[in-house]
Amino acid sequence: MMETQLVRRHLIDTDGLSLEEMESLFCRAAYWRDHPEAWFQTGKGRFAANWFLEPSTRTRVSFEVAEKRLGMETIPLDGETSSTMKGESFYDTLRTLAAVGVEVVVVRHAGIGTLAEMAWENPGVSLVNAGEGNGGHPTQALLDLFTMREQFGTLKGLTVSIIGDIRHSRVARSNYWALKTFGARVILAGPESMRDPSLEEYAPYLPVDEAIRQADVVMMLRVQLERHRETLFSSPDVYLHAYGLTPERVEAMRSHAVILHPAPVNRGVEIASELVEHKRSKIFEQMSNGVWIRMAVLERALEGGRG
Amino acid sequence: MMETQLVRRHLIDTDGLSLEEMESLFCRAAYWRDHPEAWFQTGKGRFAANWFLEPSTRTRVSFEVAEKRLGMETIPLDGETSSTMKGESFYDTLRTLAAVGVEVVVVRHAGIGTLAEMAWENPGVSLVNAGEGNGGHPTQALLDLFTMREQFGTLKGLTVSIIGDIRHSRVARSNYWALKTFGARVILAGPESMRDPSLEEYAPYLPVDEAIRQADVVMMLRVQLERHRETLFSSPDVYLHAYGLTPERVEAMRSHAVILHPAPVNRGVEIASELVEHKRSKIFEQMSNGVWIRMAVLERALEGGRG
Amino acid sequence: MMETQLVRRHLIDTDGLSLEEMESLFCRAAYWRDHPEAWFQTGKGRFAANWFLEPSTRTRVSFEVAEKRLGMETIPLDGETSSTMKGESFYDTLRTLAAVGVEVVVVRHAGIGTLAEMAWENPGVSLVNAGEGNGGHPTQALLDLFTMREQFGTLKGLTVSIIGDIRHSRVARSNYWALKTFGARVILAGPESMRDPSLEEYAPYLPVDEAIRQADVVMMLRVQLERHRETLFSSPDVYLHAYGLTPERVEAMRSHAVILHPAPVNRGVEIASELVEHKRSKIFEQMSNGVWIRMAVLERALEGGRG
Repeated sequence: MMETQLVRRHLIDTDGLSLEEMESLFCRAAYWRDHPEAWFQTGKGRFAANWFLEPSTRTRVSFEVAEKRLGMETIPLDGETSSTMKGESFYDTLRTLAAVGVEVVVVRHAGIGTLAEMAWENPGVSLVNAGEGNGGHPTQALLDLFTMREQFGTLKGLTVSIIGDIRHSRVARSNYWALKTFGARVILAGPESMRDPSLEEYAPYLPVDEAIRQADVVMMLRVQLERHRETLFSSPDVYLHAYGLTPERVEAMRSHAVILHPAPVNRGVEIASELVEHKRSKIFEQMSNGVWIRMAVLERALEGGRG
Repeated sequence: MMETQLVRRHLIDTDGLSLEEMESLFCRAAYWRDHPEAWFQTGKGRFAANWFLEPSTRTRVSFEVAEKRLGMETIPLDGETSSTMKGESFYDTLRTLAAVGVEVVVVRHAGIGTLAEMAWENPGVSLVNAGEGNGGHPTQALLDLFTMREQFGTLKGLTVSIIGDIRHSRVARSNYWALKTFGARVILAGPESMRDPSLEEYAPYLPVDEAIRQADVVMMLRVQLERHRETLFSSPDVYLHAYGLTPERVEAMRSHAVILHPAPVNRGVEIASELVEHKRSKIFEQMSNGVWIRMAVLERALEGGRG
Repeated sequence: MMETQLVRRHLIDTDGLSLEEMESLFCRAAYWRDHPEAWFQTGKGRFAANWFLEPSTRTRVSFEVAEKRLGMETIPLDGETSSTMKGESFYDTLRTLAAVGVEVVVVRHAGIGTLAEMAWENPGVSLVNAGEGNGGHPTQALLDLFTMREQFGTLKGLTVSIIGDIRHSRVARSNYWALKTFGARVILAGPESMRDPSLEEYAPYLPVDEAIRQADVVMMLRVQLERHRETLFSSPDVYLHAYGLTPERVEAMRSHAVILHPAPVNRGVEIASELVEHKRSKIFEQMSNGVWIRMAVLERALEGGRG
């Protein structure tokens, strides 16, 4: 079959990307941002399927805009639940999409490790991980790093404090691997119950105030308080003052330091509402950058799809 | 930020539109109807998101056809329930859409007043109201008026009888404000339990037969009989003969008068089934006109979106 | 109205198609496969709606790719449940779609006979049956026959054994009528409880091993085991060995014979997992052919849609 002769360009996680590959993606992301006249051409007549087995408005919309800006045709599969797919394997669905002419499949799902396994089985499409369980979320990490790089010119030597629910965060993990590759320094912080021992081998765990004081980049994570509230926190306010970003903590930040958040934001939980559009906040800039990064990732996936 | 420098062209409700603005929309609607050779250009490469928090096949499809005929790229958000958006504010979602490059957001939702509030907060997108609770439904009113105007040449002096469930009808309200601006005369009719005192300050409430006899335009409203049946009406037939449009009542209409209905139609409830495609009925013409009106509204929204 | 003057080109089922019409569809399917340079033009600026009242990822995606490859604009209605359409007739929905400019409506639903009835009522759109209850699934049959014809050059005289849940299979029925028109010989096989007496007037019912031995084409049907398991089969394995395709049965096939399956496949139920991509299997080729056949069917529907 034709597709077995091709080099597929999957994006499974940041630990599979070299520094050079990430630099090349950043370079192309900047290109797409700066050259609207080049949009709507590269992917003309080529198909991407967006297979979202978990709901994710933000990430899905960002990918869809990126695909369309490349000129691609998009096939939504986000309404499909596991019951729709009843009796059919993940692999068979991917092979089916390949058979009808889809070249790139963007996948969001709850499992861990499935995408790596699928890539190995060579289903005839390029796979792009759009968030996999608690495992990884590489395009989020790439857009975060791109945003930092635009801000500071370089990633090497930067101190990035990731604060909040580390344990349940695929964002923390994918960021950690990518930042490590660039020689940035990562600090973790957050409540005891949300620590992740597997990452602490590499990054120190500091008190929140200390982590904020040392950081060039303060990355606040979304807290799914409904999971923790009853046992640990009596109210959003209690969490905010213990571990969230408050105006007082912003005062303690280094003068050039910036605020990141993968969004959606819980206003008044991990970040005070008035800080979301604070002058230090890059939150909506991250979202804009997400489109450029995803255009770069999709372009790379398409390069593997033909000749 | 760039978008704060722009004049956004929201469409919140008809009471915010001047006669001149509505005339201009009618003019552009007729242009789009008459010039298919101009389609697929104006909005090329520009994004609309259709955010339908309440299901509405008809209105959603009409907007989607209008967007595509303008050449726009469309992003559907209609599968999103409040749980998907959990923990994120209406405002943050709009800002996110703006950040990824969406210029127009068409919104259908159950709340009242939210869109006006959002427009005030300047979220970086043009907002178009596609039906807001019992509040307003401006594109429906505009397509109704456009249909009347095509039929009679003018709206001034026209007598329009709006009949049925006035109280729960955003269509009645938006029509009322627009018709008033043009100097048309509005009559209301329907069961006692479905009256809306707030509109009766401006428009008389007449018996159904009288309202039909005087009208140039008989506008039948959809009745959600399941809400009222047990307490008030023992069957659709009872409603039809008391307040619906029957062949006998059509006989009593003025010779030039026409029938309108915002659809979807409950055949055999507010209108006898055989009248839906009666020669006086403009019901399917209204739907066709809906596309032209929405193209005009979206064009106006886009004008606010760039320079 | 304009559309009543047009000849609509519905596709309701294969029993309404002559040999010449099917040959013409096969010819166009091969054309679309072989001429990618002709894609994205024929249907430019014209609208198809995909109205899937039953979920069907595979068929929906195949139609959507076909529509887009013809250059058409697509309107999804697959999220609509019967409750969304509450109080509106099937006919009114089709008339509405016609009114907003949709020319082709692809329908998947649970009822039987509705599409034939709708075609008769002339709703102003071309109807394409994408699977109707246990009734018919004509594009599946056409893609099956196209796959056989590509393999053997002709359909006349071919022996096709359809094996499995005949009774609940619209695929079996649509294939039967089409194969009969071409003078192919159909054999049926499967468990006693899944027989369909209405088809046995025309095609013999043989034991599975005998049906496989005689066939040029072994067409395995999907078994919805969850419907039958408790009463009839204690496990997938019991079914597989009694009625499914096993490596041993493949050994007994004629040397040139091929395997077909309408998919989605229940691996290990009606077919052993290792046979899905066996060298005799045309299963993924069927899926690719589905796009070419649907392009041909949509092109025919569009020819009826304009002058």
